[in-house]
Amino acid sequence: MKLYSYFRSSAAYRVRIALNLKGLDYEYVPVHLLRDGGEQLKPDYRAVNPDGIVPALVDGDDVLTQSLAIIEYLEETHPEPPLLPKDPSDRAFVRAVAMQIACEIHPLDNLRVLKYLKHEVKIDEDAKNAWYRHWVETGFETLEKRLASDKRVGKLTFGDTPTVADLCLVPQVFNARRFKIDTSQYPTIERIADHACSIEAFAKAAPAQQPDAE
Amino acid sequence: MKLYSYFRSSAAYRVRIALNLKGLDYEYVPVHLLRDGGEQLKPDYRAVNPDGIVPALVDGDDVLTQSLAIIEYLEETHPEPPLLPKDPSDRAFVRAVAMQIACEIHPLDNLRVLKYLKHEVKIDEDAKNAWYRHWVETGFETLEKRLASDKRVGKLTFGDTPTVADLCLVPQVFNARRFKIDTSQYPTIERIADHACSIEAFAKAAPAQQPDAE
Repeated sequence: MKLYSYFRSSAAYRVRIALNLKGLDYEYVPVHLLRDGGEQLKPDYRAVNPDGIVPALVDGDDVLTQSLAIIEYLEETHPEPPLLPKDPSDRAFVRAVAMQIACEIHPLDNLRVLKYLKHEVKIDEDAKNAWYRHWVETGFETLEKRLASDKRVGKLTFGDTPTVADLCLVPQVFNARRFKIDTSQYPTIERIADHACSIEAFAKAAPAQQPDAE
Repeated sequence: MKLYSYFRSSAAYRVRIALNLKGLDYEYVPVHLLRDGGEQLKPDYRAVNPDGIVPALVDGDDVLTQSLAIIEYLEETHPEPPLLPKDPSDRAFVRAVAMQIACEIHPLDNLRVLKYLKHEVKIDEDAKNAWYRHWVETGFETLEKRLASDKRVGKLTFGDTPTVADLCLVPQVFNARRFKIDTSQYPTIERIADHACSIEAFAKAAPAQQPDAE
């Protein structure tokens, strides 16, 4: 398998954790999101993934896109160890946590949105940072309440073994800290993310450990 | 089952289609997203779904949130008719189309984001409409290329039977038209959405058919 990735991309980070947890070897192909207007928008990469976003996972003849669709695919093709619980209601809980991050927080704060705000809406650096913080804080506030009150939460989002929820949580916490958001306001989220980061599959997937890290 | 919904919410619209396709009866509970600052943010609704967003599906003791997590749950608990293909690679294709809409387009154009742009960033009506159009057009442009070139596409996204991809496509096309975007620029997307809308389960889920339609 071949993963088109950028060290700091949250969505790629999620997939790297999944591949590590499943014990799957892969070739890392860096796509620099900032260099030269963005390598992801160039014909070379568009030939692989016309969407012009990372990650893309190439598995045989298949080019898979969208991090959560890729992770569900890995779960179906390499079921061990599972990244989702067995019971449908528990699976829905885990997927809802993952999607709260992937659909409510991350899309608003990713690079192309921040670029549009700067260049098209022409907001200044302070307004951009306020925007970033607003969506992380709005999302983390409700997520913290959910995680603090749900009995299924253990050392990680669902008990003590990693699920797709943790795969989304860790990169989002990483991003929040990079933008100087005080994550101690969200003690359950912080505790889960810090515990997850102590697991080798998560640690190896961290941005600083990637071949294209700067 | 009880669905907390707003007639114009795309995410609720997706779930309504899924419930109709699965032939599941449900009680419709309207949550008015605009009245009185937004009923979804009031204690009454927060007691059901602390996230303060619609939809939420109540099934027995479970309160399920996040439209795509709810749809996966319905797929697992009521497998017939299936809303995902059998083959993992095909499932990944269908989920990627769904998530391209749910993670790349819709989150940028939903109500709370438009409200923030207006009240906090203080952009004018024209800039708000340009923002809306930008994310729909950017997303639809790449999605059109993908759908126009993938052999799995039939009358609908995957062959001729509805999948979760169509459940996301139809509400997004509905929204685009409401914002006067010319969807004939995307002939494959338009053709699929129009065909889907001729299917009873989709037609019955349309905003205008809901009890809280205005």
